[in-house]
Amino acid sequence: MTKRILALPGDGIGPEITRQACRVLEACRDEGLDIDIEEAPVGGAEIDRSGVPLAPETLEKAKSADAILLGAVGGPKWDTMPDISKRPEKGLLALRKELNLFGNLRPALLYPQLVEASSLKPEVVSGLDIMIVRELTGGIYFGQPRGRETREDGTRYGYNTYIYDEHEIRRIGRVAFEMAQKRGKKLCSVDKANVLEVTILWRDIMNELAPEYPDVELSHMYVDNAAMQLVRAPKQFDVIVTGNMFGDILSDAAAMLTGSIGMLPSASLNEHGQGMFEPCHGSAPDIAGQGLANPLATILSVAMMLRYSLNEADMAARIEQAVGAVLDQNLRTADIAYTGTRQVTTEEMGDAVLTAF
Amino acid sequence: MTKRILALPGDGIGPEITRQACRVLEACRDEGLDIDIEEAPVGGAEIDRSGVPLAPETLEKAKSADAILLGAVGGPKWDTMPDISKRPEKGLLALRKELNLFGNLRPALLYPQLVEASSLKPEVVSGLDIMIVRELTGGIYFGQPRGRETREDGTRYGYNTYIYDEHEIRRIGRVAFEMAQKRGKKLCSVDKANVLEVTILWRDIMNELAPEYPDVELSHMYVDNAAMQLVRAPKQFDVIVTGNMFGDILSDAAAMLTGSIGMLPSASLNEHGQGMFEPCHGSAPDIAGQGLANPLATILSVAMMLRYSLNEADMAARIEQAVGAVLDQNLRTADIAYTGTRQVTTEEMGDAVLTAF
Ligand SMILES: CC(C)[C@H](C(=O)O)[C@@H](O)C(=O)O
Ligand SMILES: CC(C)[C@H](C(=O)O)[C@@H](O)C(=O)O
Repeated sequence: MTKRILALPGDGIGPEITRQACRVLEACRDEGLDIDIEEAPVGGAEIDRSGVPLAPETLEKAKSADAILLGAVGGPKWDTMPDISKRPEKGLLALRKELNLFGNLRPALLYPQLVEASSLKPEVVSGLDIMIVRELTGGIYFGQPRGRETREDGTRYGYNTYIYDEHEIRRIGRVAFEMAQKRGKKLCSVDKANVLEVTILWRDIMNELAPEYPDVELSHMYVDNAAMQLVRAPKQFDVIVTGNMFGDILSDAAAMLTGSIGMLPSASLNEHGQGMFEPCHGSAPDIAGQGLANPLATILSVAMMLRYSLNEADMAARIEQAVGAVLDQNLRTADIAYTGTRQVTTEEMGDAVLTAF
Repeated sequence: MTKRILALPGDGIGPEITRQACRVLEACRDEGLDIDIEEAPVGGAEIDRSGVPLAPETLEKAKSADAILLGAVGGPKWDTMPDISKRPEKGLLALRKELNLFGNLRPALLYPQLVEASSLKPEVVSGLDIMIVRELTGGIYFGQPRGRETREDGTRYGYNTYIYDEHEIRRIGRVAFEMAQKRGKKLCSVDKANVLEVTILWRDIMNELAPEYPDVELSHMYVDNAAMQLVRAPKQFDVIVTGNMFGDILSDAAAMLTGSIGMLPSASLNEHGQGMFEPCHGSAPDIAGQGLANPLATILSVAMMLRYSLNEADMAARIEQAVGAVLDQNLRTADIAYTGTRQVTTEEMGDAVLTAF
């Protein structure tokens, strides 16, 4: 059966990095991978076209696709839109929610060739390999009630609701325990159980799951301490599991520890293995269209797609090896270039990966 | 008029570090500062005594004090208490709320003598001097409704409410703008306005305040990006203002950038200048009672007390200079010691500060 891939380039550098990643997908197809690639606009590009960040027909295509490749959404052009329900980000949030992509995998991996790029001392980060498992369709991002109101006395207030039920916590917990089983067998659950009741439930459910995974060592950490430990001694972590909001913050901090966020892919999966794959970095409108963007995070997102949604682990590994090879060849886009390396454009980087593939 | 200071040593290393800080306060008294120092238990120590983390009579003493010096609360002994409303942390939260200590100042300052202690490269952090202004009596820490419940179908869920009204935001905004005026005139407000309505209001109020402080350059940053930027290039920040939860996370990350969280004080102030002063670090039960704890953060908290609550800026500066002098003498407690420095005990560090004072 032909697998259907939907490519959503989005805004800023989205189109140029997605282009290179699609070339890699096409190379896989040339080698026998039975896929069909379709493209659609999303985010600001779709707002400019139709007034909303996610068109109903694009959502339908996404639902029936086996996997989605997303570039990036957003930019200053749309940041000042008064109605946040129509901003580019809402297209992304709607895709996550409507496709039930609750399991967000965000690796923070330091490539040995790029240890210099980190703002941390080499001994603190070399060999860093953390997997952050973030709950993506619940928590304060989607909790009701939410909104802004003016009270009778004229005072304005704003509110959101941080809510989880045990099923939501249990299913992301399982993803994380299973991930830990496949990796270093250490799972750290991050919460704020000394203050927030919702995260006491989170901790309880993680503890309830633990006996089912006796080979995994479960620990708990408060989110403030986790932010500190990521800076102090990040290599203490193997897999981290946390809610939507804390995961947003910690995964970005963890990614930045590597100094090369342009290298980091991510996967967002539902219970059927359907997934959306995107780079960890954003749309970087300041460098869009100049050939400066690093396509490797998006190319590595294709590798995650092959591994997690298309059941093609071997081809995934080949892409990852090709990326390692171009780094060994000292080829670098601007974001990771330094003296002694050869700076290449977005497209040249794509060429090099294809050659090494 | 004699000023009344309430010392709350708390748990773990709390008593030993508070002792050294009180010696410094006593030295100030010997030099003419008109103060009266009283002591009371709080946190786990009070739970062990009376079953609650904050006794009503201690709360009364705190309310009538001009300033409070807090050591640290909490420890594994009380972490598994089923009822979080009775845990040590609730004593701290109750003090903050009952005294209306909404303005939390958390400096992240790298002492030139300690640049080696940071896990970041020297060029990234040397000269680091950030002031984080955290809202401390609102937001998701105190929002209602909150709790845990079981639905009719037997599903457990937990929830908290992230809520602010414009007055709460405006008063912490003023603290932050005024702080920026006294420092580098740059204020970065951190929110998640692309997702959370409550932080759209936050951003609006900050923008409304800006024209009153034309000499301050206001910028906005999403919290995930702020966590990244703190790791990537922390010296871009002067003053950061944010809500209770984000402030908890970012201030700990920022403190850890210095590698010497044992050096960092904090102040929590209300509208009358009454304040609670405490080290940024926790109760470190693993090293309690061994003379290993660093008393400098608590001693520097006394300096903040003198500056912000007792209107004794000169004496505050003398304490800060004394701390600089002992670092210049190469004296270090275990947490900041490295080859070539002289390791001293908690009490010896206190002695040295008093000698240099
Ligand atoms: C763009 C934004 C809504 C999104 C989020 O907060 O989840 C982004 O920061 C991310 O982490 O994917
Ligand atoms: C102990 C805890 C309740 C507290 C908080 O979260 O505010 C602490 O982490 C802090 O930052 O002072």
